[in-house]
Amino acid sequence: MALGEFDLIHRYFDRPGGRAVLGIGDDCALVAPTPGMQLAISTDMLVEGRHFLSTVAPERLGHKSLAVNLSDLAACGARPLAFTLSLALPRVDEAFLAGFSQGLFALADAHGIELVGGDTTAGPLNISITVFGEVPPGRALLRSGARPGDQLWISGTLGDARLALEVFRGTLPLAGEAFEQVRLAMERPTPRVALGQALQGVATAAADISDGLLGDLGHILKRSRVGAQLEADALPRSPLLAAQPLAVQRQCTLAGGDDYELVFTAPAAAAAAVQAAGRAAGVAVTCVGHIQAEPGLRVVDAAGRPVDHGLASFDHFKA
Amino acid sequence: MALGEFDLIHRYFDRPGGRAVLGIGDDCALVAPTPGMQLAISTDMLVEGRHFLSTVAPERLGHKSLAVNLSDLAACGARPLAFTLSLALPRVDEAFLAGFSQGLFALADAHGIELVGGDTTAGPLNISITVFGEVPPGRALLRSGARPGDQLWISGTLGDARLALEVFRGTLPLAGEAFEQVRLAMERPTPRVALGQALQGVATAAADISDGLLGDLGHILKRSRVGAQLEADALPRSPLLAAQPLAVQRQCTLAGGDDYELVFTAPAAAAAAVQAAGRAAGVAVTCVGHIQAEPGLRVVDAAGRPVDHGLASFDHFKA
Repeated sequence: MALGEFDLIHRYFDRPGGRAVLGIGDDCALVAPTPGMQLAISTDMLVEGRHFLSTVAPERLGHKSLAVNLSDLAACGARPLAFTLSLALPRVDEAFLAGFSQGLFALADAHGIELVGGDTTAGPLNISITVFGEVPPGRALLRSGARPGDQLWISGTLGDARLALEVFRGTLPLAGEAFEQVRLAMERPTPRVALGQALQGVATAAADISDGLLGDLGHILKRSRVGAQLEADALPRSPLLAAQPLAVQRQCTLAGGDDYELVFTAPAAAAAAVQAAGRAAGVAVTCVGHIQAEPGLRVVDAAGRPVDHGLASFDHFKA
Repeated sequence: MALGEFDLIHRYFDRPGGRAVLGIGDDCALVAPTPGMQLAISTDMLVEGRHFLSTVAPERLGHKSLAVNLSDLAACGARPLAFTLSLALPRVDEAFLAGFSQGLFALADAHGIELVGGDTTAGPLNISITVFGEVPPGRALLRSGARPGDQLWISGTLGDARLALEVFRGTLPLAGEAFEQVRLAMERPTPRVALGQALQGVATAAADISDGLLGDLGHILKRSRVGAQLEADALPRSPLLAAQPLAVQRQCTLAGGDDYELVFTAPAAAAAAVQAAGRAAGVAVTCVGHIQAEPGLRVVDAAGRPVDHGLASFDHFKA
């Protein structure tokens, strides 16, 4: 049986309304923002082979599609409110839709947010989500606020998602539980939403790490018109990644991609507040360097020697 | 030369900021909604072969991609504020990007709205836009407000876009200026944004006609729990379509698709106000029937005889 477009939306994506004044089913959704708050908006498109592999379970893909968008809100310190979903599918695949919507809504429910609009169409698999959050005026974490002397921080650990990708590519061997663990990092990332909000008024700048640390930190440095020294050996990594050759560790932590951790800056005097924010959000935060007035990024090892970082940031057109 | 993702965004889509507090270039855009207004949100995804043909000029595709989204805001009576764009492209095609962005921004500028967020990736051509507008609380035009006795109205004319599609499909002959005219209707629709706002407090229900009149009117009837009598011969159509066989006229006006006109209802006592709204917005409005308490849609001809309307609404999975 071929389901029509509207049946599809209805069956898998229509749910009882929550904070939206009017949800799916009209030409527009109507949302009443909290008076006085600014609206934070971000959008991310996921394409097979670029942002996920065909081997991913639908539940995980549903989770990841929303997670990468929530990660952008986290990087701004915004509280998530709602999202829209546009979905192109090669064919009506109910097993896919059931799994995808389950993973999507499980994460949405965990953050108390609602799907307020959607579109489905036949076409090559494509998932486009736009998320909305709120943040008090002047409290959003921007990329432009880093100042010389600020410490440079990373949440969680970096590189496991890239490690998993390399295993899929056949360039690295990893099996059993170890493979499952890094695969989970790649396919089911945790957006640092609580940390982002806890860093309001503490961090001076922030970005989420989606295209590799070097690239995303580069955005902060460029927009803040500063430079940085980054200690490669201080970058937080899982025991699994720490067991890999040093070159692999460097590649995965510095230019891995798909980490969805936060890179952020804060004055040295705020170090205790940063640690407290991490504890409140239930995620480790690690100081990995500091901001300098001189433009450019200087990556050094534990002994302070320069580390070659001629590593391209993960870029969806270059990779 | 292969351009990277960020260069692409920058070159074609980064423009000086307007009403957004913070536009493209950070993790999120920040927008300050007008205090007390509700936010109207809609999203539409366009896929080649489903929503446009490969023969469309990039300028027109840029226009249409935003137009179909603005049409949803129009159907709610909302004032457009901003939009996000996610774009998957098979390859970096600068001629396409230049034309596409030109058409997109020309329409955005005409409505005074701003691109506040975006994502680009390699992948099969896919255009996903989310639009934001505002509307005073309680003033949005919904699909659920039609009442028995209301008159049924249509803006502009219906069916030219479908006529063009049939010419492309080779099922109808049309050439020269005539073909150019219907092709323009298909490739460069005009969203009825001003009309939608002018109908605030006048219309009782509205929807935009994107999937064919029967389908979109059906949404109003279903959500309003009413029926309607529709006079097929009263449906507004261009002289070009009126010169086609009656069966073609019926197919194109009743179930054409891609019209992006508004279908709306209003009390008979508001007929003068509806006409005034049309004049103010610079678009013809035509009364084509009325709402009835009995569920179901009864399509009749000028003599009041039933017209067979076993015509499927344009559905992107069935077509």
